[in-house]
Amino acid sequence: MATAGKVIKCKAAVAWEAGKPLSIEEVEVAPPQAMEVRVKILYTALCHTDVYFWEAKGQTPVFPRILGHEAGGIVESVGEGVTELVPGDHVLPVFTGECKDCAHCKSEESNLCDLLRINVDRGVMIGDGQSRFTIGGKPIFHFVGTSTFSEYTVIHVGCLAKINPEAPLDKVCVLSCGISTGLGATLNVAKPKKGSTVAIFGLGAVGLAAMEGAKMAGASRIIGVDLNPAKYEQAKKFGCTDFVNPKDHTKPVQEVLIEMTNGGVDRAVECTGHVDAMISAFECVHDGWGVAVLVDVPHKEAVFKTHPMNFLNERTLKGTFFGNYKPRTDLPEVVEMYMRKELDVEKFITHSVPFSQINTAFDLMLKGEGLRCVMRMDE
Amino acid sequence: MATAGKVIKCKAAVAWEAGKPLSIEEVEVAPPQAMEVRVKILYTALCHTDVYFWEAKGQTPVFPRILGHEAGGIVESVGEGVTELVPGDHVLPVFTGECKDCAHCKSEESNLCDLLRINVDRGVMIGDGQSRFTIGGKPIFHFVGTSTFSEYTVIHVGCLAKINPEAPLDKVCVLSCGISTGLGATLNVAKPKKGSTVAIFGLGAVGLAAMEGAKMAGASRIIGVDLNPAKYEQAKKFGCTDFVNPKDHTKPVQEVLIEMTNGGVDRAVECTGHVDAMISAFECVHDGWGVAVLVDVPHKEAVFKTHPMNFLNERTLKGTFFGNYKPRTDLPEVVEMYMRKELDVEKFITHSVPFSQINTAFDLMLKGEGLRCVMRMDE
Ligand SMILES: NC(=O)c1ccc[n+]([C@@H]2O[C@H](COP(=O)([O-])OP(=O)(O)OC[C@H]3O[C@@H](n4cnc5c(N)ncnc54)[C@H](O)[C@@H]3O)[C@@H](O)[C@H]2O)c1
Ligand SMILES: NC(=O)c1ccc[n+]([C@@H]2O[C@H](COP(=O)([O-])OP(=O)(O)OC[C@H]3O[C@@H](n4cnc5c(N)ncnc54)[C@H](O)[C@@H]3O)[C@@H](O)[C@H]2O)c1
Ligand SMILES: [Zn+2]
Ligand SMILES: [Zn+2]
Ligand SMILES: [Zn+2]
Ligand SMILES: [Zn+2]
Repeated sequence: MATAGKVIKCKAAVAWEAGKPLSIEEVEVAPPQAMEVRVKILYTALCHTDVYFWEAKGQTPVFPRILGHEAGGIVESVGEGVTELVPGDHVLPVFTGECKDCAHCKSEESNLCDLLRINVDRGVMIGDGQSRFTIGGKPIFHFVGTSTFSEYTVIHVGCLAKINPEAPLDKVCVLSCGISTGLGATLNVAKPKKGSTVAIFGLGAVGLAAMEGAKMAGASRIIGVDLNPAKYEQAKKFGCTDFVNPKDHTKPVQEVLIEMTNGGVDRAVECTGHVDAMISAFECVHDGWGVAVLVDVPHKEAVFKTHPMNFLNERTLKGTFFGNYKPRTDLPEVVEMYMRKELDVEKFITHSVPFSQINTAFDLMLKGEGLRCVMRMDE
Repeated sequence: MATAGKVIKCKAAVAWEAGKPLSIEEVEVAPPQAMEVRVKILYTALCHTDVYFWEAKGQTPVFPRILGHEAGGIVESVGEGVTELVPGDHVLPVFTGECKDCAHCKSEESNLCDLLRINVDRGVMIGDGQSRFTIGGKPIFHFVGTSTFSEYTVIHVGCLAKINPEAPLDKVCVLSCGISTGLGATLNVAKPKKGSTVAIFGLGAVGLAAMEGAKMAGASRIIGVDLNPAKYEQAKKFGCTDFVNPKDHTKPVQEVLIEMTNGGVDRAVECTGHVDAMISAFECVHDGWGVAVLVDVPHKEAVFKTHPMNFLNERTLKGTFFGNYKPRTDLPEVVEMYMRKELDVEKFITHSVPFSQINTAFDLMLKGEGLRCVMRMDE
């Protein structure tokens, strides 16, 4: 391509300060260095994690920064040593990577790559400790190795999943973070059996994706648990058969679930990020075989507490990161699930706006409206 | 048999009061009722659980009582409805049962039978709420459905494993509780892979059986953790390659293990019964794939505490009861492992005394000497 090896000037949404509206700026995007890829982003969605690091409450503030990590794009050019991708390939960027070389990448069980594991405080490329974004020569920081709120971005090859070029990027872009996280938590980790009972705590996009997984696995009873009663209506589209609002009960919600299910649910997936919900999700699973899966990142001071007898009665507690999917190895197959119509992605996309209206997407999320807002970069 | 349907008078060791030496008495043993079996005990061993309920500290005192639950014997007669066992069958009594009919028994994963799950406070038969033991017409209470400190005892058919009659009962009797518990915790629940690193917390009989399981599974590094440095020497016979005494370190033992293993052990099995060791056992497993298994019954007020991030980094915590073995279905096969010389049981049997010297067995255990003391009923 004509742009290969050159600096590209393009539009990006820059977060100059914590909590202040993003502003669309012209940025310079340097060419990819060794093991890096420059990607033309076509669609990007907004996820809660972007909002958390934009608010930067209880997080290290790293500004000015280009946020964004849920996206779909096309390879523009590749740096030295990149053999797996060529210009024109369709890719999903992922906030956590897969080097294919460390003990985790070589393990069948783990996706916590030693080299490319998520690092929310790093605002630079892993190779040379520099940013590829500048405005008038001054560096703008990266975010979780993806920074997809830009028409062009530079990403480590290990953080890019090469997908079927026929997959519509305006749809499958949402598979690059939250939806895969929830789906994988159920399909890869909780693994409910056909006909089983599954409880999902927290009915945001991640929880609804976990619910979609339960439905795909053939669970016959799916109990949604959320503090917000308005969540039930939407959850029904994802297979929710029963709804419990902890606020409607004086006893702990785990006891309510145990009574409803005559001993406990077979599987529980926790997608709220609150430690009290994590404890409830664990304690509501059936003794003998129940498995609870934690998906959400808790507060730094959170403490998980339970009586050890709850474990001895043969309950299992696990956590997962990105639904245990290895980004490069497994994500293309999640896209194929969509292509084969086994997975419905459209119902997660409740809004779509031109990239220039990115602050509308932030407003929608702050108001709790909808699930995913996809931004169109070419508008 | 001539005794079938009649009361049998025989010798039993009766615990009249908490903490007082047992006394050998002549007891009357009533015939088995519906779904019960009267068993002639040939060998019985002493386990910590007998000592705890004899001391009755923090436990409901149930006296006078006939303790004992690790044993081997021969069916003398069977009650109505018993079709699986006939007089002459060799059996191992188990403190937890398998009715084969409840949701747990029907589940492949659970051995926590709804009907015959351990009940340490019940001193009577489940069928009619009566004791089968009397002295001069006054009832003597049962213990965990087994009461093997008696030449004859009455046991629910669901708490008896029918085993290979060629298996020497003076050896395999120890498989009816602690050894199978530790062995199964590793083989059935932790499931270490060949070449992996396993930590065992607590090197009593249960922990050493867990260690034996790790060796059988092909673990290449087996780290024993115990507060008592004298435990290392014996543990070497069970495959211990490294020993860590938490008292030798100022930092938490989980950190010591993480350093020793460059990131954590692949599997940890906790056999101390202390909640601090449970927490250490969980926190020392490797992120991405580590699994910790809790075996021991903790104090009633114990609280398991950890940061939920330890789960989210893809660690798994499970508990097990009786090593996840279903007593009737699986225990005969554990005996066969011994018969095929895959499992060495002899090294757990460090002492043997005539039944009349049962208080010697209690003294040995209280002094922490040896692993298992087998008592010979015919002496
Ligand atoms: N682990 C990962 O790989 C990963 C990936 C993406 C997102 N996340 C995290 O997943 C979380 C969920 O994402 P989301 O977009 O679905 O969030 P969301 O805020 O839309 O949904 C959370 C839901 O939980 C409910 N809730 C809160 N506290 C509750 C409680 N105690 N009991 C029951 N319900 C409760 C809320 O009402 C809300 O509906 C976020 O915290 C995000 O950071 C994790
Ligand atoms: N879950 C079950 O099915 C089951 C069955 C049988 C026995 N048990 C239980 O298993 C337990 C162990 O049995 P055992 O006969 O091996 O006991 P034991 O007392 O012989 O062994 C326990 C060992 O743990 C060590 N220890 C104690 N605290 C420790 C700590 N904080 N860190 C490291 N080591 C520590 C002790 O020094 C001792 O060597 C008992 O409590 C018993 O009740 C459970
Ligand atoms: Zn996200
Ligand atoms: Zn890696
Ligand atoms: Zn049962
Ligand atoms: Zn025992």
